[in-house]
Amino acid sequence: MPVNPNAAIEITAFRWVPEFAQGLVRDLRVRWALEEAGRDYRVRLVGQERPPEYLLEQPFDQVPCFNDGQVRIFETGAILQYLGETSEALLPRDPQGKYRAIQWSYAALNSVEPAILNVLLIDIFYKGEEWATLRRAGAADFARQKLKRVSDWLGDKQWLEGDRFTIGDLLMVTELRFLRHSDLVTQFPNLVAYQKRGEARPAFRQALADQLAVYAENQSQPEPEGAAA
Amino acid sequence: MPVNPNAAIEITAFRWVPEFAQGLVRDLRVRWALEEAGRDYRVRLVGQERPPEYLLEQPFDQVPCFNDGQVRIFETGAILQYLGETSEALLPRDPQGKYRAIQWSYAALNSVEPAILNVLLIDIFYKGEEWATLRRAGAADFARQKLKRVSDWLGDKQWLEGDRFTIGDLLMVTELRFLRHSDLVTQFPNLVAYQKRGEARPAFRQALADQLAVYAENQSQPEPEGAAA
Repeated sequence: MPVNPNAAIEITAFRWVPEFAQGLVRDLRVRWALEEAGRDYRVRLVGQERPPEYLLEQPFDQVPCFNDGQVRIFETGAILQYLGETSEALLPRDPQGKYRAIQWSYAALNSVEPAILNVLLIDIFYKGEEWATLRRAGAADFARQKLKRVSDWLGDKQWLEGDRFTIGDLLMVTELRFLRHSDLVTQFPNLVAYQKRGEARPAFRQALADQLAVYAENQSQPEPEGAAA
Repeated sequence: MPVNPNAAIEITAFRWVPEFAQGLVRDLRVRWALEEAGRDYRVRLVGQERPPEYLLEQPFDQVPCFNDGQVRIFETGAILQYLGETSEALLPRDPQGKYRAIQWSYAALNSVEPAILNVLLIDIFYKGEEWATLRRAGAADFARQKLKRVSDWLGDKQWLEGDRFTIGDLLMVTELRFLRHSDLVTQFPNLVAYQKRGEARPAFRQALADQLAVYAENQSQPEPEGAAA
């Protein structure tokens, strides 16, 4: 199990999040990639209120941050790519294969995620607000259109570029997970199977278990004094 | 001028777009990067309705696609990185500098763009719809919060990571341009100055002129027969 308090790689993660967000927070993606690559890592937990200095590490006040002593970065896509540079389990070596994977990484985060998160936000965060009720059908249509694009591309391939799993698939599978509260993905059987293939990988299962274990441990513990400034 | 019909690099771009989108379409980012790197390129124009085969090149039916004979990819972020691998004008060589730039590239496209585009869509595409009217103030607040994060990070630095322009800045400057119809950016004087610094670069000015020249040329020409299927 790559979680190791003495590891060179450190990532940040939330100490606890509400149930609807458990299994969706972005450190899951980095944990998954680290497991695929077989790299040890340690986790620095942060509370729901971060001290102002955290913005110097992560200007958008999010998790995860990454630090291996050589490179200190935030943004999941960048972290996955950096890990991919040293692991063919994440990123092919030939230029076409490598950049196709990087392309899908950007596609997941920029061409697909905004439409999907919009539905999640409307259904969870803004539930009951008048604009959200009025917008829900249109937002779902827009997300469905993006899913159809991915479904059409995927066809009966195993992964987005064929037989080989990459960081592009890792990110796309976690995008689909954002819709677990809805029936949007279930309308596309090949996407359902694709998501299941991703979630069946031992590296994913270990990463998810490790993320959830932290929340379970911290469920009944108050934030450390002074954290909720 | 790097636009050259015999160049090895080909990108796709729209033949024409309505005025509100002129100077915002994403091929501008790739043109700008190519100018910074001093690389020749040719442009394959596509109409507002693309033939179904275009989805095999770009599954989301967008521009630009990139092809240099070795690598064939879509997604602007991936294209900029690929160009950056061969040009220090776009991407530093040391791992920390390189991955900080890549991190800002993902930050622009994933942490900032969705909030900004949401305001643009509400103000332009969905203008007058009831949900859009109700949501406008909240969407603007959310975008303002993202801009404040970028503004606080930037401080009085010239570029996001100090003295050196990278693909992260190229993308962030084009994000700010999406708000040109509003007063959101003007509330942050350091972002206004940052955007102006980007737009003053000769490479940007050439790229913008080349994109707009295409629209001007095709303003009064109908789509080719059969294109509007």
